[in-house]
Amino acid sequence: MSNKITLAHGAGGQMSRQLLDEIILPAFGNSTLNVLHDGAILNLQSPNLAFTTDSYVIRPLFFKGGDIGKLSICGTVNDLAMSGAVPKFLSVGMIIEEGFLIDDLRQIVQSMKVAADEANIKIVTGDTKVVSKGQCDGIFINTAGIGQVIEGVNINPHNVKVGMKVLISGTIGDHAASILASRHNLELNLNSDCAPLSEIVAEVLKTAPNIPTLRDPTRGGVAAVLNEIAEASNVEIIIDEASLPIRKEVRGVCDILGFDVLELANEGKFIAFVPESEVDEVLKIMKSHRYGSDAAIIGEVTKNIKGRVGLRTSIGSVRVVDMPLGAIVPRIC
Amino acid sequence: MSNKITLAHGAGGQMSRQLLDEIILPAFGNSTLNVLHDGAILNLQSPNLAFTTDSYVIRPLFFKGGDIGKLSICGTVNDLAMSGAVPKFLSVGMIIEEGFLIDDLRQIVQSMKVAADEANIKIVTGDTKVVSKGQCDGIFINTAGIGQVIEGVNINPHNVKVGMKVLISGTIGDHAASILASRHNLELNLNSDCAPLSEIVAEVLKTAPNIPTLRDPTRGGVAAVLNEIAEASNVEIIIDEASLPIRKEVRGVCDILGFDVLELANEGKFIAFVPESEVDEVLKIMKSHRYGSDAAIIGEVTKNIKGRVGLRTSIGSVRVVDMPLGAIVPRIC
Repeated sequence: MSNKITLAHGAGGQMSRQLLDEIILPAFGNSTLNVLHDGAILNLQSPNLAFTTDSYVIRPLFFKGGDIGKLSICGTVNDLAMSGAVPKFLSVGMIIEEGFLIDDLRQIVQSMKVAADEANIKIVTGDTKVVSKGQCDGIFINTAGIGQVIEGVNINPHNVKVGMKVLISGTIGDHAASILASRHNLELNLNSDCAPLSEIVAEVLKTAPNIPTLRDPTRGGVAAVLNEIAEASNVEIIIDEASLPIRKEVRGVCDILGFDVLELANEGKFIAFVPESEVDEVLKIMKSHRYGSDAAIIGEVTKNIKGRVGLRTSIGSVRVVDMPLGAIVPRIC
Repeated sequence: MSNKITLAHGAGGQMSRQLLDEIILPAFGNSTLNVLHDGAILNLQSPNLAFTTDSYVIRPLFFKGGDIGKLSICGTVNDLAMSGAVPKFLSVGMIIEEGFLIDDLRQIVQSMKVAADEANIKIVTGDTKVVSKGQCDGIFINTAGIGQVIEGVNINPHNVKVGMKVLISGTIGDHAASILASRHNLELNLNSDCAPLSEIVAEVLKTAPNIPTLRDPTRGGVAAVLNEIAEASNVEIIIDEASLPIRKEVRGVCDILGFDVLELANEGKFIAFVPESEVDEVLKIMKSHRYGSDAAIIGEVTKNIKGRVGLRTSIGSVRVVDMPLGAIVPRIC
């Protein structure tokens, strides 16, 4: 096999098969995928499922704390977890630029395997296209995921009620800040938080199955998620500036480059809206998990100005947290 | 709204929401999608499902007989149909180049809606990324599909048996030949055959639920599909040159440009392996459907040289049909 991807690798013939046999199946192979039919035949325990997709176009492809492969698994696993589902099955669609290094592809595929194994999700179907040099930028990966909805759980962004508390599972902004630092050649001891959240979420939902909504603050960050939920549930959400868990390195990146940490993408954190009576227990569970050690209560749901998100500052005033306008950090995921 | 896609449309903030509200939801909107959560919550009738994905990178985006939008629905619908499933739910992941015309996006989205409506499949979750000018070529679309496996049907490329007949639902090579003609500025009365096959397949499977395998000959064409199945089922497949339904315009394109029609991609045809006792009935059903009027028996399964595909020519000799090497027509789907 040559050391670079060629157009023939995407043409559905002998070279496509070679790519499959030498790179894809050795990493992802399982009895379902190995059938190599147009679609995978699957069985769930019940017919209630969650379904989600994301395309990943992050740059650089390899970054501190992960790469596009790990991200493409964790991002979709996390969306299933946020839907109150146990991740079960994944599809993988890759679009690769002619000339892409086979060794880089091998490394990305290996990262996908490791992340999928950790999240206990099976890659069961896929597709690879190759486009000419200059027609895409390296590699784009789409994953779609199917999860089994946990019985008794009903996650819906419209169901948040006044009086509930807002919890976050850890420090905010780590992913975007680490990518920004690398793009701007800032030397920092900072990793992306990219991680699969399905296990910690399942533990939380076991204790508090009536949590109305969960959301991972990826593109658009905490600001976008809270605005969407404030609008969907027609409530006000007030968060306390002093309670936000933020690494000093992330504050530094924001200060130097002029970003609002609330708008930065996270790839291993989730926000939960929790009825007050269950807050202590949920916080304890989060903190006892390796992906939740910095969990915190960051705010509460009120009713003063419906659809609004406010940030209570250290001097006690409240400033409005707007929905980000967009484009603050392109190709962050 | 401006008339071009900007990076902000992919950033997860206000502009992303505007794109969703003005372009995506008016076309695709349904009670599941409109929840706008990280994942869609779905119910099937039974927990037996088919799952598939494809990325679409076709060029040109708009072609005779369809566009990338129609193709991105039909291709995945057809893969579900080939799995013996009734298409139910789709995810849509779009990667769009900065500067892409909003009007073109609107037209593509409209084509997707029309095709999804025809195939009776619901778009329930999606994602849009925007990359800078020059980092992708216009628009790439990934769809992943979930189908409900038809009870009693068990499609598997490993189950083809000696003595079965090979049927095709219509003329071959129309899609690739029409794309090639347009790329080479050949003026021809020839359309892509891009169409959703779920209805005709369901009718066939109702009559012949014990059909062992179905396959749509897309990339790599009839040659690739037959070779894959000959290998998977460890049989020989012999097709008759004289029986192949081929339009004269397609023959012309092949003659002029030097392509083998057996290697050309189709997007609205399927191959069925049928037990001899059911061939007449299946052929009748195919021919009575608007997408099967040119259906034909094109060959049979034998056991002479296992794993081989042969073409019996008009003079009675048999030439080997190899697995295509690859790259004959890049970006054909």
